[in-house]
Amino acid sequence: MKIAMIGLGKMGGNMAKKLIEKKHDVTVYDISPELRKEFEDMGAKAVESIEKLCKEAEKGNIDIIWSMLPAGEITENTILDISMRCAESKIIVDGGNSFYKNTVKLEENISKNGHTLMDAGTSGGIWGFEKGYCFMIGGDKRSYDFIEPILKDLSKPEGGYEYMGPAGSGHFVKMVHNGIEYAMMEAFGEGFEILKEKKEFDLDLEKISKVWQHGSVIDSWLLELCGALFEKEGNLEGIKGYVDDSGEGRWTVMESIEERVAAPVITLSLLQRFRSRKDETFSDKVIAGLRNQFGGHSVKSKKGG
Amino acid sequence: MKIAMIGLGKMGGNMAKKLIEKKHDVTVYDISPELRKEFEDMGAKAVESIEKLCKEAEKGNIDIIWSMLPAGEITENTILDISMRCAESKIIVDGGNSFYKNTVKLEENISKNGHTLMDAGTSGGIWGFEKGYCFMIGGDKRSYDFIEPILKDLSKPEGGYEYMGPAGSGHFVKMVHNGIEYAMMEAFGEGFEILKEKKEFDLDLEKISKVWQHGSVIDSWLLELCGALFEKEGNLEGIKGYVDDSGEGRWTVMESIEERVAAPVITLSLLQRFRSRKDETFSDKVIAGLRNQFGGHSVKSKKGG
Repeated sequence: MKIAMIGLGKMGGNMAKKLIEKKHDVTVYDISPELRKEFEDMGAKAVESIEKLCKEAEKGNIDIIWSMLPAGEITENTILDISMRCAESKIIVDGGNSFYKNTVKLEENISKNGHTLMDAGTSGGIWGFEKGYCFMIGGDKRSYDFIEPILKDLSKPEGGYEYMGPAGSGHFVKMVHNGIEYAMMEAFGEGFEILKEKKEFDLDLEKISKVWQHGSVIDSWLLELCGALFEKEGNLEGIKGYVDDSGEGRWTVMESIEERVAAPVITLSLLQRFRSRKDETFSDKVIAGLRNQFGGHSVKSKKGG
Repeated sequence: MKIAMIGLGKMGGNMAKKLIEKKHDVTVYDISPELRKEFEDMGAKAVESIEKLCKEAEKGNIDIIWSMLPAGEITENTILDISMRCAESKIIVDGGNSFYKNTVKLEENISKNGHTLMDAGTSGGIWGFEKGYCFMIGGDKRSYDFIEPILKDLSKPEGGYEYMGPAGSGHFVKMVHNGIEYAMMEAFGEGFEILKEKKEFDLDLEKISKVWQHGSVIDSWLLELCGALFEKEGNLEGIKGYVDDSGEGRWTVMESIEERVAAPVITLSLLQRFRSRKDETFSDKVIAGLRNQFGGHSVKSKKGG
């Protein structure tokens, strides 16, 4: 199919590469001239601006415009820009982790300009190129049917794709997916810490994470990654326990509050990430101070304090 | 090998069956005459008491005695009984979910009587028969090497086994495994509830749990079970949201407290199970009453109250 990929980072780049390999007619755009050149050498047509991309689309050289830019303003502005520049109706796919409420609004705007916006929640990370991506798609059903050959090729050999429902639902399902992922990661983190702290058994975490991959109830892709992690990094002396987040966990928690659904474990997994970024919290200073106030418990003073 | 299986419930029965199929010399004991008869018909030698089992062992007809009884007193008493009755040294395997601290004590007692106790943390549930079990083994390393042919056959085709360390370490690792399992299950529970409550998207949970099995980061055996659950039970109208627990989660939480390791998500997953068993909590009555006291917020009265 005639498809343009916008954003050639680790996700978009791998997807463009996979589409070129699958013999699609791929146009690419990225702000980096080096990346554009790299993909041109692979067999893609590279354009140097959104304006030129739209010209190609108007000429009939592009039917689907797939954005793999970072979620947020850059994605929204780029998609709006395309929708205003392109005179021909196109299917625009947002494959990033956009907040689903923004997707719903953006889709309304885009359709006013005569285009169709599909939201493609995408999982699989950097492994998707090899294993195949997992897509959760929201938006117009006929447009879903139209882009299906692309989804099919990108999900090969072990990935998958499925139509979720109206605009925003693909990003919504991906958001909750990531909320679940936060809690699963926290579960493994806590479990391995309990194992590691059991000094008298001197347990081998690599062995454990590998045997659990054979027939245990917690066998999972994340567990496979744990096995690879302990194999490579031993007892993780080289890794700082500082955990970032990129939005989907927060949105899942906010959604659970809006729905009045108690999701304490997903919520706490997010809060643990916040905690991981601080050496010390003000909250703990308050508690330490209060214990001293009412019970005369000793307070550790700051160095030089 | 010459092995006796004690306890022919869903775990022990399937394991005995698998060992018979793999041409081991299997003796069985269960309190139920019907079960004994059933396994006799399959090709096992059935004995009608622990006393007779020990006589067979003394005659050299049994080298390994594997207990798959429910964890707790029944397992401990049976194993102690065997260790006192059997004059010949035997390897006794406790394949149940015994509390590891009890295993450590029991192993000391057993070895005083000249026997060896191995602890075999066992995962795989009722699927283990087909897929192969996952074993986490603690105890004497030479005895582990001796029982390895049994572990190998029981773990076929996709299961696994691994030596964890000294007595108790197999049950310890299995205990933490189950703690992680609690939190993973809670993560899926919360995630699917957030999806279900998003009425405007009218999401299909079966479709979602199935597409996630193809290349997503949360792909896991538990997710496969979610897919099978929604396929069979639709939106779960037929299932009561009452969740039992069988000890390992509590022990994991107690262990985390002893180690001073913060394991909030595993802990909360256990507490959510406690909460699931009550229609109403006294705690919530206190809070509702207090809101009424200080703010004049209305209190719902009990029917007829």
